[in-house]
Amino acid sequence: MTGDNITTYPVDTVNRVKRLHDRGAYDHATIHALLDAAMLCHVSYVIDGQPYCTPTLYWREGSRLYWHGSSASRMLRNLSGGEPACLTVTQIDSLVLARCGFNHSVDYRSVMAFGQARLVSDQAEKERALVMMVDRLFPERTALLRQSSHQEIKATAVIFMDIERASAKIRTKGIGDNEEDYRLPIYAERIPVNTVLGKPEPCPRLLPAVKRPPTLDGYREGRPLEDSLAEAYRASYPD
Amino acid sequence: MTGDNITTYPVDTVNRVKRLHDRGAYDHATIHALLDAAMLCHVSYVIDGQPYCTPTLYWREGSRLYWHGSSASRMLRNLSGGEPACLTVTQIDSLVLARCGFNHSVDYRSVMAFGQARLVSDQAEKERALVMMVDRLFPERTALLRQSSHQEIKATAVIFMDIERASAKIRTKGIGDNEEDYRLPIYAERIPVNTVLGKPEPCPRLLPAVKRPPTLDGYREGRPLEDSLAEAYRASYPD
Repeated sequence: MTGDNITTYPVDTVNRVKRLHDRGAYDHATIHALLDAAMLCHVSYVIDGQPYCTPTLYWREGSRLYWHGSSASRMLRNLSGGEPACLTVTQIDSLVLARCGFNHSVDYRSVMAFGQARLVSDQAEKERALVMMVDRLFPERTALLRQSSHQEIKATAVIFMDIERASAKIRTKGIGDNEEDYRLPIYAERIPVNTVLGKPEPCPRLLPAVKRPPTLDGYREGRPLEDSLAEAYRASYPD
Repeated sequence: MTGDNITTYPVDTVNRVKRLHDRGAYDHATIHALLDAAMLCHVSYVIDGQPYCTPTLYWREGSRLYWHGSSASRMLRNLSGGEPACLTVTQIDSLVLARCGFNHSVDYRSVMAFGQARLVSDQAEKERALVMMVDRLFPERTALLRQSSHQEIKATAVIFMDIERASAKIRTKGIGDNEEDYRLPIYAERIPVNTVLGKPEPCPRLLPAVKRPPTLDGYREGRPLEDSLAEAYRASYPD
């Protein structure tokens, strides 16, 4: 799974994509590109038979995913021994209005990743991960910040999961009506959905001489969030 | 839970919001408003001890949530008897760059809803639900479409879940640095994140006389998706 010469995640009944009209992919390149262009995931885990679906921020290093939470959160109390988890990332790209209800759809890109979630318990590794949690989004930012206190580090839990299985599902086809339905006098369209950055709002309490560092140039008004995230990822993990 | 005079979901260890610096809410008004302004959810469920986190489209009727899937999907085979599920909806509103790593955050709104997921097996109720799946997004659209075939209805599964417990978490505060950190010469900002509609793209194969129906006026370029969705919801469920 970690060798450079193995470029797909294994496929079995857990992660095989079943719906044939959506494209399933298992290769590292497709899956990692989707993961590196996003920041929000939903993580599923089970406590006493009850499934939880928790939104959180995540990032990737190789085939390892990291996410974070409060040390007090219920999600984390059960994870020290390794608990099965599923981390999913989804981007909606358009609404698809077809000529019948059945062909109404959305264009989207998603990744489901499966593995065993574990707490990062080694202190040095945890501190490194907390740096990357910020710097993966805002390259080299941690060096400009007030250093984290011991208490802050203690209050944040970092979880990691080595991806054992993963799949991507991508729908890009827009309108896909049955051939005979194109002859009907019914309106159909695709409505793009874009997640973009607004105008950055500097803190009103900035000290007078403090300017926006050039390392934030990638975050500018009107740019798709995913482009800023992918660029920041490449700056932080240049290999 | 369904009476008009009961306006909050019950709170216990499953849904109590633990992190005090985020605002937790349990009232129907807050939770339903968030649910009705979105279309994408992630649903967690468990098969053989393995949690799955599946993205799908959902909608709400009262305290009941509906979502759909392929009849062939692995998610649905286990649900006929009622299976514990958690449905989560999350909206990121901004990236928050603070003066220390610990106070970096995002403004966001999310809902977690818990209950027992079940297949809609009654045929008339299923057909009604499939109409609402489209009309909830695009009011009165089904009446303009080619009717669904028996096979199409059979191929689509509709799941419902009565919300037994739910919580909303909302962070809106932007930058929240420790008071003493505001004296440091460190740049901080809030970057808004907006999910907006692009320019609708009519199907290139429209018949010549077919025009965009006025019922789609709510979907226009540059509008926040959540505004279009909330408006469409109110048109479909006017009470």
